[in-house]
Amino acid sequence: MNTLFGNAAVGQSGGPTAAINATLAGVIRGFRENLHGGCIKTLYGMRNGVEGLLEERLIDLGGLLSSEDRLTMLEHTPAAALGSCRKKLPDIKKDPGFYERLLGIFKKYDIRYFFYIGGNDSMDTVAKLSEYTGSHEYDMRIIGIPKTIDNDLVGTDHTPGFGSAAKYIATTVQEIIRDCAVYTTKAVTIVEIMGRDAGWLTASAALGRAVNGVGPDLIYLPERPFSMERFFEDLRRAHEKHPDVVVAVSEGIRYDDGRYVCEGASGRGVDVFGHKALSGTGKVLEFAVKDELGCKVRSIELNLPQRCAAHIASAADIEEAVSVGREAVAAAAGGVTRQMMTIERVSTTPYKYRIGHADVSEIANKVRKVNPEFINDEGNNVTDACVEYLLPLIVGQTHPVFDRGIPVHIIV
Amino acid sequence: MNTLFGNAAVGQSGGPTAAINATLAGVIRGFRENLHGGCIKTLYGMRNGVEGLLEERLIDLGGLLSSEDRLTMLEHTPAAALGSCRKKLPDIKKDPGFYERLLGIFKKYDIRYFFYIGGNDSMDTVAKLSEYTGSHEYDMRIIGIPKTIDNDLVGTDHTPGFGSAAKYIATTVQEIIRDCAVYTTKAVTIVEIMGRDAGWLTASAALGRAVNGVGPDLIYLPERPFSMERFFEDLRRAHEKHPDVVVAVSEGIRYDDGRYVCEGASGRGVDVFGHKALSGTGKVLEFAVKDELGCKVRSIELNLPQRCAAHIASAADIEEAVSVGREAVAAAAGGVTRQMMTIERVSTTPYKYRIGHADVSEIANKVRKVNPEFINDEGNNVTDACVEYLLPLIVGQTHPVFDRGIPVHIIV
Repeated sequence: MNTLFGNAAVGQSGGPTAAINATLAGVIRGFRENLHGGCIKTLYGMRNGVEGLLEERLIDLGGLLSSEDRLTMLEHTPAAALGSCRKKLPDIKKDPGFYERLLGIFKKYDIRYFFYIGGNDSMDTVAKLSEYTGSHEYDMRIIGIPKTIDNDLVGTDHTPGFGSAAKYIATTVQEIIRDCAVYTTKAVTIVEIMGRDAGWLTASAALGRAVNGVGPDLIYLPERPFSMERFFEDLRRAHEKHPDVVVAVSEGIRYDDGRYVCEGASGRGVDVFGHKALSGTGKVLEFAVKDELGCKVRSIELNLPQRCAAHIASAADIEEAVSVGREAVAAAAGGVTRQMMTIERVSTTPYKYRIGHADVSEIANKVRKVNPEFINDEGNNVTDACVEYLLPLIVGQTHPVFDRGIPVHIIV
Repeated sequence: MNTLFGNAAVGQSGGPTAAINATLAGVIRGFRENLHGGCIKTLYGMRNGVEGLLEERLIDLGGLLSSEDRLTMLEHTPAAALGSCRKKLPDIKKDPGFYERLLGIFKKYDIRYFFYIGGNDSMDTVAKLSEYTGSHEYDMRIIGIPKTIDNDLVGTDHTPGFGSAAKYIATTVQEIIRDCAVYTTKAVTIVEIMGRDAGWLTASAALGRAVNGVGPDLIYLPERPFSMERFFEDLRRAHEKHPDVVVAVSEGIRYDDGRYVCEGASGRGVDVFGHKALSGTGKVLEFAVKDELGCKVRSIELNLPQRCAAHIASAADIEEAVSVGREAVAAAAGGVTRQMMTIERVSTTPYKYRIGHADVSEIANKVRKVNPEFINDEGNNVTDACVEYLLPLIVGQTHPVFDRGIPVHIIV
């Protein structure tokens, strides 16, 4: 084993999740296990990811090591305790100076281990840093640790953060279905769920059918082109069965010609990665259905709570989020670099997984869409195979500490 | 004691809550306790409140009695298990025939006890039935049981259903505040909370400050006239302290001249009680702030989950919701009629309450607004006295049964 002595830095990047702090806690746990006779001396936390790293806003995470209570509390605190950023790194050839500055900071703090917890865009950062440092003499190990509620990273069975978001969505949609069932008047309730390019989160709305026997009448994912006419037809057929029709729809559904359904509705721009900021799909459908069917129509945008509802986090997800952080440290200490940690599903029944890793350059900027066999032929619901894939990821409840009725959060 | 032998009917009315089924379970428990040597023979459940009663859609609730497990599950199932309605009863003088029909149904089923679980509008139903039957020879006992997330019924310290909604709001707003704190960019996040005329739910957004030391920077209730100019000023001052400003706002805020802030935005109509259907206050503010401050602005409408998020129900609320149902049966059996059950606060520290009752004709169609001393002088936040009043109502977690990660609901 090629032992590399030095310090480590860990950062969080991209959108928050209910599990990204669990992964941070996992990295701290991995570091703690490495401390005695290990190769990593100090573990720095970057404030606001690479944005803070560039400004040398580093904090020594040693303080979090001493208290098991604080680590556990961190595991139950949503969002990114270190802060996050949405910074796209420049092309290496176009702006080598940027990377020289980063390298200067790595040298100044003797940072030899770089752990970056994030999603698709953050893996772009990890891939670029891997490429740059790989072609320089500064010996360094760079590991991406997956995190995204969207579950759309390739090379891994699923991503930490997804299970908790899926559990929140499944639970909330069940509650909404019960709420909508109380009246006898004909109505349509449209639940808009996050997911720009992949429908994993929206598919999770179906999970209650395995337990309570009910789910949304209709589910539309971005993997299939959306047709307003077919949607109206689907609604009419659903109303033949019962008056309270509930629809789950991904914010990212598009028409056949590639236009987002929400386009035109919200005049919002694009983010730094060039992605369109979507919102308003539910509203667009609400108004269209009101015009067409004339019945009571309501739309509900689940919005931010999808990514920060730690109070209903999945115990399975939090456990994996910790594991993947801890294993990242062990892997790096063992010589692994330029990889993203992965979760491999060993079996579904009973559910078993193991932590692995894969070349990050093969992962960045790709999108893992919902498997075709997980969507029904009509393209308006998910299959039982999909429910079977998803269910193990939401199992188990976490037990955050409550004080006077409210979950206690740690502020780092 | 004037013993009255006969059957009982219980109905649920108005908007669902996370606790209205707990009250139904309480009525069933009260009936069960009355069974041996008591005066009530059969307990009917009305499907969809008086709407179903008129169609004689009655079910014998005896089946729910036998299983403690099913009763407990009912206590953790959100929305209205019997179904609900939003039916406004006609004026007695204008449509006596309507009441004669109802009386005929009461006689047909020998219904001598009428329990109606609902909010403001449902107490109007209870008051009218009380008035009508009081002037006829059919001996009957009529009891309203309070339920509303809005907490706006007079004559009671608070209403069952409110505590669970408040706990959901407090928890979710805390999570949103953590989510918004991760970036360094100047931003405003506006959380729109239910409450047409009273700001109790919106005030609950502040509760996290007692536990986590943080709450919304600004809170606007319908009790104070809203000024867009003052709002912009408040935001500017808040941005001097930190970039991630979070605002909690009631859907029902109005300008000085009485116009709702959301008016014009959503062209929605009025409901059967003549109340304007509000929605879009957050969106109106979002666009206004974007224009004025030019920073990133987002609005989040908490929407239906406020009234059906049973997974984060308040144990204190559920306990009281059961008690008030059980006590209603005992009170009616003891001769009480034409009353709404009430919760009297005996002390705040430690929190103690007792169940009482009050004349329903003094309660219907009135609105209990947030106490003036619960709102700060600037009208842009709530006071510590408000937090102190609210906190006991959200204490304790319930423990719904989970199956494969999802709360199990009972469908009656």
